[in-house]
Amino acid sequence: MAITGGPDIDRMAQACAAKCERAGLTARIEATSGHPVVYAEGGPDDAETTLMLYGHYDAFPAADQDGWRTSPFEPVVEGDRIYGRGAGDNKGQFLAHLNAVQWWQRHNGGLPIKVKMILEGEEEFGSRHLPEFIERNRDELAADLCCYSDGPQLGGDRPALLFGVRGALVMEVHAEGPAQPLHSGNFGGVVANPLLELSRFLGRLVEANGDLTAPGIDAGVPRITTEERALVRDLPLDLADFRARTGGDPLPAAFGEEYYERLLYKPYFNVSGITGGYTGTGMKTLIPTSAMAKVDMRLVGDQDPDQVLASIEKFIDDQGFRGLSVRKMFSQPPSRTPVDHPYADVVARAVEHGFGTAPVRVPSLAGTTPDYVFTKLLGIPSIMVPFAPADQNHHAPNESMRISLFKKGTAASARLIELLAEGGAGRTAPPAS
Amino acid sequence: MAITGGPDIDRMAQACAAKCERAGLTARIEATSGHPVVYAEGGPDDAETTLMLYGHYDAFPAADQDGWRTSPFEPVVEGDRIYGRGAGDNKGQFLAHLNAVQWWQRHNGGLPIKVKMILEGEEEFGSRHLPEFIERNRDELAADLCCYSDGPQLGGDRPALLFGVRGALVMEVHAEGPAQPLHSGNFGGVVANPLLELSRFLGRLVEANGDLTAPGIDAGVPRITTEERALVRDLPLDLADFRARTGGDPLPAAFGEEYYERLLYKPYFNVSGITGGYTGTGMKTLIPTSAMAKVDMRLVGDQDPDQVLASIEKFIDDQGFRGLSVRKMFSQPPSRTPVDHPYADVVARAVEHGFGTAPVRVPSLAGTTPDYVFTKLLGIPSIMVPFAPADQNHHAPNESMRISLFKKGTAASARLIELLAEGGAGRTAPPAS
Repeated sequence: MAITGGPDIDRMAQACAAKCERAGLTARIEATSGHPVVYAEGGPDDAETTLMLYGHYDAFPAADQDGWRTSPFEPVVEGDRIYGRGAGDNKGQFLAHLNAVQWWQRHNGGLPIKVKMILEGEEEFGSRHLPEFIERNRDELAADLCCYSDGPQLGGDRPALLFGVRGALVMEVHAEGPAQPLHSGNFGGVVANPLLELSRFLGRLVEANGDLTAPGIDAGVPRITTEERALVRDLPLDLADFRARTGGDPLPAAFGEEYYERLLYKPYFNVSGITGGYTGTGMKTLIPTSAMAKVDMRLVGDQDPDQVLASIEKFIDDQGFRGLSVRKMFSQPPSRTPVDHPYADVVARAVEHGFGTAPVRVPSLAGTTPDYVFTKLLGIPSIMVPFAPADQNHHAPNESMRISLFKKGTAASARLIELLAEGGAGRTAPPAS
Repeated sequence: MAITGGPDIDRMAQACAAKCERAGLTARIEATSGHPVVYAEGGPDDAETTLMLYGHYDAFPAADQDGWRTSPFEPVVEGDRIYGRGAGDNKGQFLAHLNAVQWWQRHNGGLPIKVKMILEGEEEFGSRHLPEFIERNRDELAADLCCYSDGPQLGGDRPALLFGVRGALVMEVHAEGPAQPLHSGNFGGVVANPLLELSRFLGRLVEANGDLTAPGIDAGVPRITTEERALVRDLPLDLADFRARTGGDPLPAAFGEEYYERLLYKPYFNVSGITGGYTGTGMKTLIPTSAMAKVDMRLVGDQDPDQVLASIEKFIDDQGFRGLSVRKMFSQPPSRTPVDHPYADVVARAVEHGFGTAPVRVPSLAGTTPDYVFTKLLGIPSIMVPFAPADQNHHAPNESMRISLFKKGTAASARLIELLAEGGAGRTAPPAS
């Protein structure tokens, strides 16, 4: 069962806590101002190494999605796939880690390291209350490495290590115009049009390649290193798949830019919706009273969401766009762990053990997770290892997880625990499937 | 009865033709590709002067308007007002001219000049088929002066002569984006966002004061003459009324511009609506597949709508906005008659006779009428004389005409016929009310 909100949230949290207990961990459900966090830990108190695991038990809403072949909340197995909302995003991934813990419990009588698991219920809505849990339990949450699985593997089910995420700044830009709709003949030129002021703001903030013109907005955007540039140039890009999905060619090529440098190293200002005035059949020659744009920015490196917001508001003031105001909905800072962090090789060896192939190292996820709570709030290096297939259809109808990848992920996670226990040099390997 | 489309159109045209016949004119109803035109004429064939009159029997739709105190299509008299859709726009105005013709018929046994009357049924929808009627009957429509009444008088019911109109270019700007909605995290930066491309086009075309940046778009915009500048500086502007209607101060003042120079001598690019993406509650972090803006431009002087459209399309090409296309809905060229045209004094004297006060001379209406069919297609000077009160509420609920203004307009029109018959020097005046 996956959860999209309401009273089932508590049942889902209880199911997660019960699974943690079955894996040999001590679990509790802790309330927040939003959905509760399930926290569990286990392993020797005198362990030299502590591994932080993370997952989310909430799922993307399926209620208004057409196109499901099966009931989204009834798991259905077909061949190597299990279909259902949340199969890949994220239950089929964090369960692999919990099964690895359970394997250690059953086969070796216990964990060789300390393991801590955070399962939150608001990832699909910006993890807004996770920081509240983190701050309240800061001392309890110390760890040496955070490793978790979310998002899809690369094309061809190639495993990858991801060393960070882009952040998010979600806001609405409101434009207020005349007190009532005004005839464009009688008033066209003597009042400010809120749709035009909004367009002028958006159109003058964003360049054709996505660069942003507001002074200070790029503070914290990282300069790509030579090593990182080599990494992103080697990342696979399936052009046929890109064209099939988007109907066109990649935009960065038109500006002589590298695809992954733009996607992973630059902020992006997405306008997801604009509304204002009359847009039905025919024409109403009126100057509208208001307009609104929904914006979700992606942030990178050390960009601070509040500083970005301030630079946008200053840009509006300096340029004199009339009647505009920005309402921040929520934000998540970006996050990065160095690609040459000492733990990177350890995680890579564990993944190669589980999947039979060396993982590709990717400097960042293009999307957003609450990675910053580990790197920035707790100071823990964090490496993501996606277990879900590239075609998992997360957030879309007919989401699925491949059972073979689930088993390989379990083996990789079990091996990671062993390697961490041995200080990075694995002695006996748990079975790879 | 006012008309908003459908089979009642024919009944309305028949009622207009019958009224023309009662006024002593010979009337016919002529079909067009749209609504029919009522054409009527009368007076001696050997008259030295021919006056063209114009009006429209269609009315602004009232079906979806809340706030009517009375039934929009049942005329209700209260004191000096008659309420109803079309009372001021335009039946209560062209009927004054027809009653003046009828007065000449009854009191003097006939008209002293040739009078031609065109009543069309599509003014509220851009007069799209009026040019078809004009071109087909070009020889029959020769005249020395066109004079008609539409729109409101100035504040305080001050009569005015208007020597032209702004034109209109109505279009939709469509932006095509990716083939399906794409996650802004995974694709933000590597595909073009149609809402951003649309905003970039609009925001870079239009300056804060309304000036337009597309090269060539201002071809035909007139340079204001010293005499015209003096005229527009003297035009009354009721700031309290402006603030009450708009909720703010006039925009031109913020740029050191004259209110009426901006309103009457500059084109205006109005965006009446934008739609695209998701704008409901919450947030969908998607790059949308398409976007659309509804635009109605106001044109001035000798701007040619098709040339303006071409300059916009060239601007899109030159600037490289992606996926944009412009669909023209319809257009009406702007129109001007010189404010010092010899007939201006004749019309002014007639209006002063009818209203008891000299009219203000206004170089142009800010809005649009099909004035160009007279000035540009037929080569006739054209002067508008609004008879409706400043607060007629045309296009809004509770539209009304003042009965006293209707009578004064009738007297002014009757006097104009006399003055034209006398070569501009009135001998015996018809009664002013």
